[in-house]
Amino acid sequence: MDTDLDAYCREHQQRFVAELIEACRIPSISADPAHAVDVARSAAHIAAAARDAGFTTVDILETGGHPAVFAERVVDADLPTALIYGHHDVQPADPLELWESPPFEPEVRDGILYARGAVDDKGQVWMHLKAVEAHLRTRGELPLNVRMIIEGEEESGSAHFDALVEREADRLRADVAVVSDTEIFAKGVPSLCTGLRGLAAIDVDVTGPARDLHSGLFGGAVVNPATALARIIASLHDDDGRVTVPGFYDAVNPPSAEDRAGFAALPFDEATFLVAAGGAPATAGEAGWTTLERLWVRPTLEVNGIWGGYSGPGSKTIVPAHAHAKITCRLVPGQMPGAVAHQVATAIRGAAPPGVHVTTTVNAGGRPVITPSDHPAVRAAARAMEHGFGRAPVLTRSGGSIPAVESFARLLGMTTIMVGCGLPDDNIHAPNEHFDLDQYARGVRVIARLWDELAVSRGIMHDQ
Amino acid sequence: MDTDLDAYCREHQQRFVAELIEACRIPSISADPAHAVDVARSAAHIAAAARDAGFTTVDILETGGHPAVFAERVVDADLPTALIYGHHDVQPADPLELWESPPFEPEVRDGILYARGAVDDKGQVWMHLKAVEAHLRTRGELPLNVRMIIEGEEESGSAHFDALVEREADRLRADVAVVSDTEIFAKGVPSLCTGLRGLAAIDVDVTGPARDLHSGLFGGAVVNPATALARIIASLHDDDGRVTVPGFYDAVNPPSAEDRAGFAALPFDEATFLVAAGGAPATAGEAGWTTLERLWVRPTLEVNGIWGGYSGPGSKTIVPAHAHAKITCRLVPGQMPGAVAHQVATAIRGAAPPGVHVTTTVNAGGRPVITPSDHPAVRAAARAMEHGFGRAPVLTRSGGSIPAVESFARLLGMTTIMVGCGLPDDNIHAPNEHFDLDQYARGVRVIARLWDELAVSRGIMHDQ
Repeated sequence: MDTDLDAYCREHQQRFVAELIEACRIPSISADPAHAVDVARSAAHIAAAARDAGFTTVDILETGGHPAVFAERVVDADLPTALIYGHHDVQPADPLELWESPPFEPEVRDGILYARGAVDDKGQVWMHLKAVEAHLRTRGELPLNVRMIIEGEEESGSAHFDALVEREADRLRADVAVVSDTEIFAKGVPSLCTGLRGLAAIDVDVTGPARDLHSGLFGGAVVNPATALARIIASLHDDDGRVTVPGFYDAVNPPSAEDRAGFAALPFDEATFLVAAGGAPATAGEAGWTTLERLWVRPTLEVNGIWGGYSGPGSKTIVPAHAHAKITCRLVPGQMPGAVAHQVATAIRGAAPPGVHVTTTVNAGGRPVITPSDHPAVRAAARAMEHGFGRAPVLTRSGGSIPAVESFARLLGMTTIMVGCGLPDDNIHAPNEHFDLDQYARGVRVIARLWDELAVSRGIMHDQ
Repeated sequence: MDTDLDAYCREHQQRFVAELIEACRIPSISADPAHAVDVARSAAHIAAAARDAGFTTVDILETGGHPAVFAERVVDADLPTALIYGHHDVQPADPLELWESPPFEPEVRDGILYARGAVDDKGQVWMHLKAVEAHLRTRGELPLNVRMIIEGEEESGSAHFDALVEREADRLRADVAVVSDTEIFAKGVPSLCTGLRGLAAIDVDVTGPARDLHSGLFGGAVVNPATALARIIASLHDDDGRVTVPGFYDAVNPPSAEDRAGFAALPFDEATFLVAAGGAPATAGEAGWTTLERLWVRPTLEVNGIWGGYSGPGSKTIVPAHAHAKITCRLVPGQMPGAVAHQVATAIRGAAPPGVHVTTTVNAGGRPVITPSDHPAVRAAARAMEHGFGRAPVLTRSGGSIPAVESFARLLGMTTIMVGCGLPDDNIHAPNEHFDLDQYARGVRVIARLWDELAVSRGIMHDQ
């Protein structure tokens, strides 16, 4: 049954979409230094939108990298306080030729908004902005205090976020953080994510000769760096899909029998998963685990990119001077990013044949996080989702990483609830990223309702 | 002791260099369709230079790909006829940032000409043009008939050369072909190459999902095409550096004990070789063979390029949709390109894990060639080299491939002598390709002398 908030949201939905489209026009690619100006422009755009929505204090926070946006509206010190987290930066858009419409020229087709950042994470940030607006325009005030931090470096490793959280700890502290950067289990199957995998990132550089060599005059008598890299990468998994890096699994907290039973009861359909996975021909992975377990409770080691030598048209008969790979591991509870990165880097260097030099670089990572499923904020969020989707959410985890959630836990001791409204086939981090506008509309109503639910939940406030 | 020809060459050497510099300004990269106009311009430039040198008939031959240049000067049907072969196209110049001077802005530093194509093969074509000029300006006529074919597709697989040779067989037939596209063993150690390795080329495409996937949401549950490609490549060699492709070595004619003894007697210095090999840290390769044997009489399988996924700045946490490699095998006597390419392609597809699609494409290859070391033309060439270098040449082979030499043998039954004057560290197919101008000057004199030697050699002419 529609509340006053729902009615407001439905009435203004078209404008909510128009505003999101404007936000998506900004190519705020944080990983590419060439787009630094765009990320700054994106921060200013978010700040303006926060003021329009009714936040009272709005600041752009310099970080030493890309700027974040802080905003707050404090109603009463005796009310609970929620901290909204999101990010306004986006993934790189290449390969551009695979986009059906340009990544930064948003287009609505069949009720779906196509744009880089549409759902990851500008659309979900906008759910929050519009939920605040709905409360203020409908009732004149929020039922609790709201703070907001919108990061500009989530897609490039959140290198300055920890320092920012430490510096701004007083302004960020809240009873609960609310992050909308995840998805629901399936269309019509709302879900609440209670755990995220962590990340360890390692770059590998294999160098042989100082220059590319003629493969006829030198091939067969020196080590080929591309072949060496391939052999190193091949050595990192066994034939059963297990990571062979010594110690890799030692710290893993295995899921409980109850966890595994819960996952097994979920309406998981392999065919649907494979469609969402871009039509991958088959599932695969570590022997002895289901697909959901491989994604949610098992660590992985993936090659994100590999390159070396000639990739242009025709033939170039060379032994490449060097070859490279970018590797990331997804981590599960118990594993620490620094330790895993060290293990992997050591294994990679140890696998190097004589005749090439192999160096490794460890990049920014993040710890895995679990949110207790019986926390009153999780229950409040479940009620808000049931209101928005007409069905109680199932409890899931996500295979992804949100470094901010981990930072809040580690630095502020703060619990986070993850109330995301994306869908599994939204093509995030890929060409043709999109956001189902029905999910967006429901998302605004879920968040608006969430503030009501959190405001009346017992045990939310830290001093209760 | 200087002959009239030598004196002429010395007198005009500065102009010979200036002319070569002009030829090297043309970026005639045959592998890159964007440079098709430049390859055509290069052909016209060669044709004009051939007329200037004194060739009487000069034609640009269309091939369906890049044009070749034909030229001839027939003196007397009773004299022997030599066919000069060279190529006017060049390798791609990337990575551009490693060139100390731009690849197509030739620069002479310390008596060495730096430019793409300086020695491979424009400089060696120019040796022939200037040798003809020297004969005509000094004596008014050549001592034998000379024909010349300068190809425009040697660096991109010579796709149309066989058809051209078949079509123009009557104009190309000669008693001996002379190719200057090889190198001498070392500075001060002149050599004559009597064998070339063949080539088989296979492109590999590994595809999984239709788009890049988020490595958190899908990683660990589908096959990663980059990892799959690495494992396929790793499977192609064993730990002793032997190619594991079934049947790969079956057709190989092993070198004789005499061949191996001859190679072992050559003044090979591993440290010098490693310097020439761009400072590669160590030699390596198939167990049980020396470096020269690995290069000259053993087949190889090399990755020329590998790519897939993200290679830009920062992190992009994806499972790449696809990954690719370019592979070439160097072949030795006994092996046939089509058969080896088929063996390798079959092994690659057979190594594909379920969960990805692996396709292979076989590209243009070439058969290995051996020239009998007691052929009178080889002896004539040895005398010409001794004249130019002051020391009799040693007999070697080359690990490289010259498809034209193989085409002449297969299609015209023609013997080829390889009189090359490059040096092993000329950086051919790599940044900072260069030609030692002393080698260039000697090369012109060697070729000029070669016509005299061939003209008086018994047993050169086919009807003798």
